[in-house]
Amino acid sequence: MIKKLTLLLFTFLLLFQSLLGQRTNSIEKTLQIVDFKLDNEIVFSNAFIKYVTYGTLNKAKDNAILMPSSYGSDYNGYNFLLGKENAIDTTAYFVILPQLFANGHSSSPSNSLSPFNGPSFPEITIQDNVRAQYLLVKNYFKINSLKAVIGFSMGAQQAFQWAVSYPNYVQSIIPFCGTAKTYPHGFARLEAAISTIEADDKFNNGNYTTQPIAGLKAWSLHWASWFLSQEWYRQEKFKTFGNKSVNAFLQARIEKDKDVDANDRIAQAKTWQSHDISKNTNFNGDIEKALSSIPCKVLYMPSLTDLYFPIAEAEYEKAFIKQVVYIPIPSIWGHLAGAGINPEDNLFLNKQIRSFLLNATPPVK
Amino acid sequence: MIKKLTLLLFTFLLLFQSLLGQRTNSIEKTLQIVDFKLDNEIVFSNAFIKYVTYGTLNKAKDNAILMPSSYGSDYNGYNFLLGKENAIDTTAYFVILPQLFANGHSSSPSNSLSPFNGPSFPEITIQDNVRAQYLLVKNYFKINSLKAVIGFSMGAQQAFQWAVSYPNYVQSIIPFCGTAKTYPHGFARLEAAISTIEADDKFNNGNYTTQPIAGLKAWSLHWASWFLSQEWYRQEKFKTFGNKSVNAFLQARIEKDKDVDANDRIAQAKTWQSHDISKNTNFNGDIEKALSSIPCKVLYMPSLTDLYFPIAEAEYEKAFIKQVVYIPIPSIWGHLAGAGINPEDNLFLNKQIRSFLLNATPPVK
Repeated sequence: MIKKLTLLLFTFLLLFQSLLGQRTNSIEKTLQIVDFKLDNEIVFSNAFIKYVTYGTLNKAKDNAILMPSSYGSDYNGYNFLLGKENAIDTTAYFVILPQLFANGHSSSPSNSLSPFNGPSFPEITIQDNVRAQYLLVKNYFKINSLKAVIGFSMGAQQAFQWAVSYPNYVQSIIPFCGTAKTYPHGFARLEAAISTIEADDKFNNGNYTTQPIAGLKAWSLHWASWFLSQEWYRQEKFKTFGNKSVNAFLQARIEKDKDVDANDRIAQAKTWQSHDISKNTNFNGDIEKALSSIPCKVLYMPSLTDLYFPIAEAEYEKAFIKQVVYIPIPSIWGHLAGAGINPEDNLFLNKQIRSFLLNATPPVK
Repeated sequence: MIKKLTLLLFTFLLLFQSLLGQRTNSIEKTLQIVDFKLDNEIVFSNAFIKYVTYGTLNKAKDNAILMPSSYGSDYNGYNFLLGKENAIDTTAYFVILPQLFANGHSSSPSNSLSPFNGPSFPEITIQDNVRAQYLLVKNYFKINSLKAVIGFSMGAQQAFQWAVSYPNYVQSIIPFCGTAKTYPHGFARLEAAISTIEADDKFNNGNYTTQPIAGLKAWSLHWASWFLSQEWYRQEKFKTFGNKSVNAFLQARIEKDKDVDANDRIAQAKTWQSHDISKNTNFNGDIEKALSSIPCKVLYMPSLTDLYFPIAEAEYEKAFIKQVVYIPIPSIWGHLAGAGINPEDNLFLNKQIRSFLLNATPPVK
């Protein structure tokens, strides 16, 4: 019996290892940032970002790619792009995956000490995130140039921010399902999201002692109706996940979200809301000027049916980017076309990213 | 001084009358329905619908047009289409404007007696609404055929329902910004809407004694982010309403919605959710068969940017309708392209509806 169990365990480990493919070194590490000065002038003492790396940094330190995490996600959000079979061969590239502040791993309301804990967590911008990541890649890893910054959703926001914050440091960016600015609809929609939790008395201005379950239910339904397209629902793609009805799908979502930390999610939503690569003294809010300033090659891939970052916004932005390869993802998976869930979208993204990287910044071992 | 005031009042009255144009007889009337049997087998004793009429029913009784109201609205929702200058000349047509159950005028949670008051209000379908309207036009007005049923949003749902519930009674339908069925996304989105109010303890399962203000705030923000398009927001069209910022626009919406009756709005949302013209023994849920069965002429006008009833759903449906004139409204006003707010959309709708009516069912005085 014990032998059988051991064999089973061994088989499982082998399987697990092969699933990981070339993604080694996947131990979460920490970059401590002492007295991190935020855009809002607050000094965040003891801030930290959690990250993982895959592959090996070569001696010339010129094979690094950065992939910042997206909303409510962590470094696992990019697994579908990594490995020899995928766009980013981790035997060739050194891939760094830092996690957004407030994702529950990096400094967040849920893991910070007073005076930055819970609802007192400071407002952190995308620019702040990128500045922290720069400390990691430049100061810690001593990398002089990034091959690419690749990101989905809020990861795309960070990719765009990198191209204007450190224009001479980044050889290319690959934003997908995300724009260079949160336009007013994004602000409105996220206000709606935040208000669902605030509607629950148990939230208690962020000083909750039990989960605000009713608010989190409304929160979950909010996201479920935004992150996929109407056409995805009409074609009953929820059956893909084994849900027999739309209601079963929604109930599963509610169940999944009932344990999330409300303050963490709200803090990240605020980061999302305030994003604007032109919100600085270089561009004074002129988004067209900011986009025009991007010196590097850009592979810009909106999803055709994204309700968060709709195709019209991407069409608007790409017109101002000098070196842009603009390839919409032909998907009905809405925003989630870039989330690594739908095999067809994954294939499409892998193909486009692989091809772009080989042309723009071929790997150097 | 008094003379001056009288003159001013007189001028105002003249102006008011000319604004009303040919829309006379605008006194709200009531149709009492004794023991109204609903789709769910519940017998709603003392149900009533409120309606207004404009124009005069001719002797042959063949100049009638029906315009059922939309979500959260009343008969005033169609003012922009009525009058000699507009699509529907009320000197030629007799226009009947019945109001949806649960809109606060017709039988609603807020105005019903026990056992149907508040949260005990029965679930009413679009089919129920149409059956009640049939009693009004056929039994009360003795009209043998309707020139047209014209409707926006849930009004469009009713127009489609008329075409299958009373196929030989309706000469044409003009649904705009609304589909023949609420597809799963509509269900999901409305679940999200309802859950915002339910998240507020003060809602108390519909037995509220004070307004659930926090829930209604989330409710208001929900609708504000869905009923206009992302592109409308990006182009800052909220400035049209005199709002300097998106936040000012949202605050004005919240202020506007804080007095709505939560049970009324939820009841109408449920009517919306369950709509499906194929949900009956004739079609057994086969929406394509139901659409194919429509014998009358259809002017189908979705809004290009509607997030409620997206263009992809209209494209899908129109392929099955035999006599369809399909004209999307080229607007960035999202669902509200059909709400009579944007002058350009109003002109477009008036032009298309006038032209269609003249060809399909010219007026008979």
